[in-house]
Amino acid sequence: MTSQLCDMLGIEFPLLAFSHCRDVVAAVSRAGGFGVFGATAHTPETVREELKWIDDHVDGKPYGIDVLVPENMATRGEGSVTAAALEARIPEAHRHFAERLLADADVPPPAEPVSRNRAQPFDPETALRTLEAAFEHPIRLIANALGVPPPEMIAMGKQHGVPVAALVGAREHAIRQVEAGVDIIVAQGTEAGGHCGEVSTLVLVPEVIKAIRPIREVPVLAAGGIMTGQQMAACMAMGAAGAWTGSVWLATPESETSPVFREKMIAASSRDAVRVRSRTGKPARQLKSTWTENWEKSPDSPGALPMPLMSLISEKSLRAADRAAEAGNDKARDMVTYFVGQGVGLVDSVRGAGAVVQDFKEEYLEAVERMNSLLAD
Amino acid sequence: MTSQLCDMLGIEFPLLAFSHCRDVVAAVSRAGGFGVFGATAHTPETVREELKWIDDHVDGKPYGIDVLVPENMATRGEGSVTAAALEARIPEAHRHFAERLLADADVPPPAEPVSRNRAQPFDPETALRTLEAAFEHPIRLIANALGVPPPEMIAMGKQHGVPVAALVGAREHAIRQVEAGVDIIVAQGTEAGGHCGEVSTLVLVPEVIKAIRPIREVPVLAAGGIMTGQQMAACMAMGAAGAWTGSVWLATPESETSPVFREKMIAASSRDAVRVRSRTGKPARQLKSTWTENWEKSPDSPGALPMPLMSLISEKSLRAADRAAEAGNDKARDMVTYFVGQGVGLVDSVRGAGAVVQDFKEEYLEAVERMNSLLAD
Repeated sequence: MTSQLCDMLGIEFPLLAFSHCRDVVAAVSRAGGFGVFGATAHTPETVREELKWIDDHVDGKPYGIDVLVPENMATRGEGSVTAAALEARIPEAHRHFAERLLADADVPPPAEPVSRNRAQPFDPETALRTLEAAFEHPIRLIANALGVPPPEMIAMGKQHGVPVAALVGAREHAIRQVEAGVDIIVAQGTEAGGHCGEVSTLVLVPEVIKAIRPIREVPVLAAGGIMTGQQMAACMAMGAAGAWTGSVWLATPESETSPVFREKMIAASSRDAVRVRSRTGKPARQLKSTWTENWEKSPDSPGALPMPLMSLISEKSLRAADRAAEAGNDKARDMVTYFVGQGVGLVDSVRGAGAVVQDFKEEYLEAVERMNSLLAD
Repeated sequence: MTSQLCDMLGIEFPLLAFSHCRDVVAAVSRAGGFGVFGATAHTPETVREELKWIDDHVDGKPYGIDVLVPENMATRGEGSVTAAALEARIPEAHRHFAERLLADADVPPPAEPVSRNRAQPFDPETALRTLEAAFEHPIRLIANALGVPPPEMIAMGKQHGVPVAALVGAREHAIRQVEAGVDIIVAQGTEAGGHCGEVSTLVLVPEVIKAIRPIREVPVLAAGGIMTGQQMAACMAMGAAGAWTGSVWLATPESETSPVFREKMIAASSRDAVRVRSRTGKPARQLKSTWTENWEKSPDSPGALPMPLMSLISEKSLRAADRAAEAGNDKARDMVTYFVGQGVGLVDSVRGAGAVVQDFKEEYLEAVERMNSLLAD
């Protein structure tokens, strides 16, 4: 199909796939979708390496990147802070609670020191330098996952002729984003995996479209819960220009997820995707596990720390749980979790990323045919 | 259009409208939708009176009724309990907190005594006698709003050849309902007004359709957040047999809502519809107001009471607030609330119920045309 959005991105089927995994990005774009590489926590050096790999495997098809430049963090206004300095701010109670959860599940404590090479989490300066590095590659979209993109980011997009997208979870945020100059709005419902708001996709998409129409004509992508071409068609019937997806790619062999997590995805119902603070410090939807349940509900829980401190505890602890689970520890398996949306309830198999794109196309057409046949009867 | 559901209900446009107001029910059915009269808390006598009125005003068009027979209540297993006896169980702390909220807003305390004529809230025996009275009228659907309908209800439906519908908020509940013998499933997302679960409509509808398919062929209506024909088309693109709606009718002049509440609906965004316990004791979505905020967040709040005790406090208090607000009390206006879904963010005017049905039909066709023109381009 053709549309303003398809023209902007150089595609014919407006299925956008967010993934931290270059293999998914390349496979989706090759199959006719549009891969978006999640570059948060990357350095300019590592992003160059990843995008070079994508360039070598994407057959010249378009793709984009996504960074996270949050407006509100515990480190706001402090400039550059080392990861080691951040680590030192984690209260003893939180450190001990995480250690006890791991010990109770017979998970060996994470040995890894705070890496000196890894970018400090969510540092705005690093994010902008990472973006500069990304522009050495033929990226066709830059997206900001949280809050209004900084003016530098919008300026960089304009300078390179690359559209800037922003994720929003509320009508009010969409208005701010359009006024700030973004080119594409991603209206993400509460059912989405990762950071999300409280309004459902079915309501948010038409609400955002209606709210921004008087300001400027900006394509709105629907996000949150979309795992099938029927759901994509549903959102486009309401006026969305396409679909932004994430969780569906976690159940592909190309993804960064572990086999254990993929098995848990297949077993899960939509109600197992809970919106809690116990991974990043902000409400983010993820698979319910003994990690999320204990941080949220245990009487001993010290509660979640603000972003970015919570991730310093959770990421290394959960990597340790992943390793133990893969080695056959059932209590560690119960702890395994990852960002995933309510759409996890629709997952019943692991499929290749290219096959998922094909299924979306077929399901999309089936949905349109269904609409026509209902009227024809 | 024709479909299994349309045949079951004797309609051509599968837009179902739940309303406590007979005027809405008759107007929707006359306009080609299907009105469903909310008969909870009615006695056999009052339901006869209401349905007689509908029969006189519906031009022979089909309509249905909805009752609420919850499985879990504070009064479970107690048989018949008088409203006065229930009133006596309300703790002093809760009574005082409600009184103080009203006093702080200069709302005169509710003078009304516990009515002896009114049915006790949600009494299963009364609900079944009410249903019997309803079958003296040409009803075409009986629906149960909470939990699995009791076997007597399903038997009554079969005996009269009237389909039985049940609302569900989770895949697991849909499976139980189909196994119990219901004829129509209403899959209601978390964005819905009133009692609701946690899964969004966009995910729940395909998840429920997929889960019940192996058991029996049962039409699934989509519910939660649906205020427009585009959203109805979206849900039907995913396989829903039609739409079950509620909140959209509250912004009609035929509705039981006050002018003040309708003005608040127009001003509200989707995030103003909060899912809290402070009206019925179970999580129910309603307009955020000083009533909901104080019960949920005030440090002095004693917390919500279980169903049905909470309604005994909230209903009379909120009626008093409504009256004071209509008389011009601004603090009372801030307290005014009612069950409403996130779709409230899409309301920008008060329209007649018949006009809403017409708009749904036109918007539905526009959505189908949009889908076709996207593919044709």
